[in-house]
This record gives sequence, C-alpha cells and structure tokens, in this order.
Amino acid sequence: MITNRFEHPLNEKTRIYLRVESLLRQLQHSSSFSDSNQHQIFFKSIFDLLEIFEQIQLKSELAKDLEKQRQTYRAWLNVDDVDQEMLGSILRDLDGVHRELMAAERFGQSFKEDRFLSTIRQRFGLPGGSCCFDLPTLHYWLHLPLDKRMHDAEKWLSSLKPLMDALHMWLKLTRETGRFKPEIARAGFFQSDAEEANILRLNIPMHYGVYPMVSGHKNRFSVKFIAFESGQAYPNDIEFELAVCN
Amino acid sequence: MITNRFEHPLNEKTRIYLRVESLLRQLQHSSSFSDSNQHQIFFKSIFDLLEIFEQIQLKSELAKDLEKQRQTYRAWLNVDDVDQEMLGSILRDLDGVHRELMAAERFGQSFKEDRFLSTIRQRFGLPGGSCCFDLPTLHYWLHLPLDKRMHDAEKWLSSLKPLMDALHMWLKLTRETGRFKPEIARAGFFQSDAEEANILRLNIPMHYGVYPMVSGHKNRFSVKFIAFESGQAYPNDIEFELAVCN
Repeated sequence: MITNRFEHPLNEKTRIYLRVESLLRQLQHSSSFSDSNQHQIFFKSIFDLLEIFEQIQLKSELAKDLEKQRQTYRAWLNVDDVDQEMLGSILRDLDGVHRELMAAERFGQSFKEDRFLSTIRQRFGLPGGSCCFDLPTLHYWLHLPLDKRMHDAEKWLSSLKPLMDALHMWLKLTRETGRFKPEIARAGFFQSDAEEANILRLNIPMHYGVYPMVSGHKNRFSVKFIAFESGQAYPNDIEFELAVCN
Repeated sequence: MITNRFEHPLNEKTRIYLRVESLLRQLQHSSSFSDSNQHQIFFKSIFDLLEIFEQIQLKSELAKDLEKQRQTYRAWLNVDDVDQEMLGSILRDLDGVHRELMAAERFGQSFKEDRFLSTIRQRFGLPGGSCCFDLPTLHYWLHLPLDKRMHDAEKWLSSLKPLMDALHMWLKLTRETGRFKPEIARAGFFQSDAEEANILRLNIPMHYGVYPMVSGHKNRFSVKFIAFESGQAYPNDIEFELAVCN
C-alpha cells in the first residue's frame, strides 16, 4: 500500500530544525552538480540557510536541546532493564556531536566571508536573476572544471558538518521516541492530547486522496484531512498511523 | 580552446527577454522530474515567470517587437541579391508566431486560475518552505505517479507555448544579425559605438581567468574584464570575439 509519509512540528523551533534538515539534504544531493540545473538548488539552499542563520541563534538552541537529551539519557544509567551498552553508545555520540558543535564557528560565518558567495547572493533571488549578465562571476564559475567546482562545494559543506551532525542526532533521537500506532480519523477529523511533543509523524494511505492539515502545540493537536482534488474537508473515516515524538 | 560564452542585453526589455528565455529553458529541462530536486526548479521557474508577467506587459511588448522585425524583413522583398525563398520562409514563421501570440491568453492567466499552483505559491518562497508541513498539497502531489505529474507539467507548459515560440523567434533573428569578430581589450578594457543594438555576445577564452563587466546602452558600450580569482581589473590585453546584435 502506497502511503504519504508526513511530518509536522509542534513548535516553532522544531519547524526551523525540519526546514534546515530539508535544506541540508537538498544541498548534499545537489552538490554533485550532475545536472545543468543542480547549481540552482545548491546555491538557493546555501542562501536559504544563511537567511535562517541570520534570524535565529540556531547553534545555541541546538546545543541546549542536545544537552536536554543528554540529561534524559543519563538518568537511565544503571537502571535495570535498560540496555547499558546501547545507552553508553548513544551518550558517547551525543557527547561527540555536542563537543563538535560548541567548537564550531558561528553558522554561516565562512559563507559570509566568501567573496564569491557574497557577490552572487544579492542577485540570486531576482526572478530569473541567475543569467550570465546578472551574475557574471557565477557564469564564470560554472565554466570551471567539475572537480574544481566539487572541491568548492566540499569546502562550503564542510563548514556545515557540525550543524549536520548535531541536527541529525537530535532529530534521530526525537523521532525514535515515537511509535507508529493505528488511529481512525472520524469523518476526516482527529484530535488528541500529547505531552511536550515535538513532532507528529503520519502514514496516510494514498488511496484516500487526502493530505492532512495539522494544528496545535506540544500538549494538544488536531488533524483535519482535506481531499486533494476538491480542496474540501474529507467527509468519511480515515485509517492512518500516527507517531507522537517528544 | 575553452571559451566562456557570454551575452549582455543593452536595454531593459531585452534583459527581461533573456531572463524569461532562461526561465523557460529551466522549466522545460526540469519538467521530466528525473531527479528528486527537479520539482523545486520547476515550480520556482513558474513563480519567477509569474512575477515577471505581473511586472511588465510582456505580450504586447513582444508583439510590437515581432512586428518591427516583420517590417524589416518585408523591406527586403523583391530586392536583388536577397534569397527570396529564405526570406519568404522567415516571414511565414514570423506571421505564424505573431498570430499565435495575439490569440494567446494573458501570460500566466492559467497559472493564476490553477488552485494547486496558487496554493503553493505563497509559501514556496520561504527559506526551506517547501517542507511537507509548509506545503502539504505539494507533498501530496509529489507522491502521485510520475505520469500524472508529467501530465500536469505538460498542461502548465502548453499555456506558455505562444510565448516560447514568439520569444525564441525574436531572439533567434536578433542573434543572427550579429557576426563574431576578433577584438582586443587593451589593458583589459574595450569600448565601442553601436547602432540601436539589443544584445552583445562575447566569446572569452577561459585561460585569461576573467569575466566581463559590461555597461552601456544601445548606442555605446564598454567592457571591463575582471580577474575571477582576485576580483580586480585585469591589467593586460585580452583577445576575444564580439558580436553586436540589433
């Protein structure tokens, strides 16, 4: 059965984390420049990330959140029935990414100091603004040999590694707190309480032809299913799977 | 010898034409959705085009310009030493795209009336805003079978066909008015007069490591060559090729 896998953040910070995760994924995927359009995605992702870095203190937020996870896992040390070997491994990983994060530069610092990136950033957002006459430096760069371009991409990506590792760790542990359970949305509507939840994950069978509209916060949320074709509320029951992640 | 092919518009309208050409090329290239990122380019190109359509009366501008070309070519009818067969064929093509253009809807009209496109347009521009929770309808659409998505893309592209044909025709005939000639930029600088020129085309050997900064207008222009690595003016002579297109 084909399902639509769907994630929804229950607070603003997690919303940013998921957006950043998605941008980092795009960035890595496009960094092979395997297609004549990939550089568009690559640079757009870099500049979108820069905009987010300028808006919120991502590094300190993430450090705090990793610290919270560390405390949660530490509380399970020497508790019976807890796999101490696995726990030790998670704690070592958490220590590692936290240390790497604290030692990292301010996110985006190397991008801002890069003359090439700064030059192309201004006009890149114009509609159709990546033409050769709008961005002659970018046009020149695109004519460089692939290995030189990939070397540049690697250099830019490497400055994001501490962020990638820390964010992936936090999201992985957060997602693992939730177990998928079957639920029914009566007449296309579902609501429930939660406790300090960060992310909802839904598996929705495609055959209903619906997508979810989630609203709520860490302690209470509702899901309304909308029929894609009509744009109207779906009137019938829907069986789906839900995982609530803390 | 590897060269950097470079084009520069000498007036604002041609600048828009070249940007639109570049967006249409991206749109067509990405409409195969051959890669998990292609839809990003596809929808970004559509929304960039819409923004341009909202800013200028592209259809009437293009109709006027095609009419001007038609008059120029008509003046050569029955002139000795002009290949009348080729001329007849160009005039028939011009008549065809002009007719098609005049019969077309207002550019972007079908995009604006498309509920799906209108829904995703608002949030698409947010940094990282194409996550499933920001755009649940897009996320649903991405789960549809490839042939359904390609069918939608074809439908959206078909409304742009009159624009594509007219713009390609005008740019093709404009580019053909220019012949590449060898030129020398003394101490990295070149200037010249022109007559009602629309586009400059340059072939610059990559081994100089430079890109051009063009300024000017339809009757006079200058080209300053900048070294990519240093960002400074290039101090030596540069042999390059230039075509001035009217």
